Amino acid sequence: MKTAEKLLKKVEGGTVLTPKGFQAGGIHAGLRYSKKDVGLLMSESPAAAAAVYTQNHFQAAPLKVTQESIQHSGKIQAIIVNSAIANACTGEQGLKDAYEMRRLVAKRLDLVEEHVAVASTGVIGEFLQMDKIAHGIEQVEVSNGLEGAKSFQEAILTTDTFQKSACYELEVGGKTVTIGGAAKGSGMIHPNMATMLGFVTTDANIDSTLLHKTLKEITNESFNQITVDGDTSTNDMVLVLANGMADHEPLTEGHPDFEQFKEGLKAVCVDLAKQIARDGEGATKLVEVNVTGAQTKEEANIIAKKIVGSSLVKTAVYGRDGNWGRIVAAVGYSDAKVEPDQISIYIGPYLMFQNGLPQSFSEELVTEYLAKETVTITVHLNNGTEKGKAWGCDLTYDYVKINASYRT
Amino acid sequence: MKTAEKLLKKVEGGTVLTPKGFQAGGIHAGLRYSKKDVGLLMSESPAAAAAVYTQNHFQAAPLKVTQESIQHSGKIQAIIVNSAIANACTGEQGLKDAYEMRRLVAKRLDLVEEHVAVASTGVIGEFLQMDKIAHGIEQVEVSNGLEGAKSFQEAILTTDTFQKSACYELEVGGKTVTIGGAAKGSGMIHPNMATMLGFVTTDANIDSTLLHKTLKEITNESFNQITVDGDTSTNDMVLVLANGMADHEPLTEGHPDFEQFKEGLKAVCVDLAKQIARDGEGATKLVEVNVTGAQTKEEANIIAKKIVGSSLVKTAVYGRDGNWGRIVAAVGYSDAKVEPDQISIYIGPYLMFQNGLPQSFSEELVTEYLAKETVTITVHLNNGTEKGKAWGCDLTYDYVKINASYRT
Repeated sequence: MKTAEKLLKKVEGGTVLTPKGFQAGGIHAGLRYSKKDVGLLMSESPAAAAAVYTQNHFQAAPLKVTQESIQHSGKIQAIIVNSAIANACTGEQGLKDAYEMRRLVAKRLDLVEEHVAVASTGVIGEFLQMDKIAHGIEQVEVSNGLEGAKSFQEAILTTDTFQKSACYELEVGGKTVTIGGAAKGSGMIHPNMATMLGFVTTDANIDSTLLHKTLKEITNESFNQITVDGDTSTNDMVLVLANGMADHEPLTEGHPDFEQFKEGLKAVCVDLAKQIARDGEGATKLVEVNVTGAQTKEEANIIAKKIVGSSLVKTAVYGRDGNWGRIVAAVGYSDAKVEPDQISIYIGPYLMFQNGLPQSFSEELVTEYLAKETVTITVHLNNGTEKGKAWGCDLTYDYVKINASYRT
Repeated sequence: MKTAEKLLKKVEGGTVLTPKGFQAGGIHAGLRYSKKDVGLLMSESPAAAAAVYTQNHFQAAPLKVTQESIQHSGKIQAIIVNSAIANACTGEQGLKDAYEMRRLVAKRLDLVEEHVAVASTGVIGEFLQMDKIAHGIEQVEVSNGLEGAKSFQEAILTTDTFQKSACYELEVGGKTVTIGGAAKGSGMIHPNMATMLGFVTTDANIDSTLLHKTLKEITNESFNQITVDGDTSTNDMVLVLANGMADHEPLTEGHPDFEQFKEGLKAVCVDLAKQIARDGEGATKLVEVNVTGAQTKEEANIIAKKIVGSSLVKTAVYGRDGNWGRIVAAVGYSDAKVEPDQISIYIGPYLMFQNGLPQSFSEELVTEYLAKETVTITVHLNNGTEKGKAWGCDLTYDYVKINASYRT
């Protein structure tokens, strides 16, 4: 693992188009007032595909269509995305519209329909304006430069305040493999908005089955460990395309560089996940919670997510209040079997609670620390050797403002 | 059951002292700046007692002492409560202090120590100022009039904006039985504050075991169905005392009026629970969610609580936005197996969603409805015959304000 970390390189300014053989673009089709709202991402050749979807029972129509496409042959060559309208809770008509989006893209690019994936994000319960979408699909242009990437990144946003991308590089069998990603999301559900979309591209050579297994595992330690408001959207999806153009021997679980690849994919997913958490609605800072000394990784992850999801912890961070009592309470109401006398709690480098007792600390230094753009909370359970992490943001007046006044 | 509802009478202005044989009072002992902070509630004779406690693993010291007292003989004659400091996360010293409170009350009132219950609410992780508490216990005066009740009600509050009491009357074996209650709580955890305390008195004749069984069942449909911010305090406790002074044959499960008594106890608990929800930190209104047509009562209650606990639903209610999409999403991310195509959603009397499709409605009328002090959301699952309810409040700027700036 040391080697893996050593060779894994963050590509500054890298995007979803940095891996070989991908093109993208976006266009203003008129669904939103002035911003781009239809995006297209494609691979030069059909790519091994894997996706994970929202756990909300009410999956939106585009997710159903994308699932069907991937199940067909495990390959995807193009992804069409629209923002503004989620095409969720739209019944038969919504499903028909999602299929129509897939058909129009396949026709324009001369692809098999089942090689096209569809994603939507926006207001729930409204029908797509298909004439505008059809026009967008017809007109959108793709390229493989920074402009193409930025156009695509813009087209997938809703109330996000910045574009989200990440890129890492590693070696597999002596060949350079690049993994890039783009994402949107600034609330686990936006005000009625379908939240989190992640698109990851790579020129690695890996089959769809192993890619899916790897993605699922990584999602549990990245996208599934962020929370903005505890709500889960109907439209969440993370989709990975691997087109094999890095031209190495196929990755298998036994391949000496497989762990390396996994680390790379995880690095991209964690990077995007943190950007989404940081861009939580109304957020002023990123909060990272580390839980160590747990009996199981799952337990550590659950506790970390409970803490980062507590409204009281989130408001305390916003108010720069070293309110460790709220952290203790959040640990206590998780299902994990933890003894209060055993745990230690740190805010940044400052020890707040140990051996079941409050510790003396400088209010001034802690308040100063909580003014930072990234705040770290660490809980040692002293109960085992496993650890977990979760990310979130503070809860501010602007969260209420955005969500109380969004739709009307 | 019809008969039960018919005979059950709300006693307007009734309190925890309306049942026969109870006295109470409160005093400013100096833990808070100027408000009363030590309260005493007592029965003329040892009363059958039952209590339910927080599910948070980190139970505060007073809860441990109270549990021990009740286990001793199932009888309690006096309850001592302090506000301002929760005596939670205070280790050995905290436990010693809680025992000392119990001892001081027993000494002053000449009671067996195990007939005294202890409750605390306030900041976590600070030690009680025992000299002030001892002085308070020594000086507090009790009476059985409205003044005594109000003094006690004030002494148990923290950031609550109003005192909470309820009283119902019914008949058991031809005798009048009265059930009264007082409560505090305006967040499931306050800013570091130990949240919800409920004290219920009755002159009914019922043993501790049956009282406990009944209370547990009722708690699941009252106090456990309210949520302000999803956090669970270390200090929550509901304690019922039944002193038997109504002088009827003992209640058993087979007693013809047992269901009647249960309805009465439930009415008091639901009434207090709704007052707590309405007084949620920063809240401007009470939100009641009804879920009908479920396969099980548990499922209905879980879904109702998910909806009323969703930050997005809460902000939409605050913003008077008929945003049914957020309600659908909340139903969808509960664990219950529900088909989106089957459910119907109403905001007040207005149908918003049916057969998997949005329904047309008047934005103006819905906005007007959402301006009311109490807002009802109804979800028909069309999946069975069971139903459930939950209560909460809107999420406002003031919630953030109170919680971001409370402690410092």
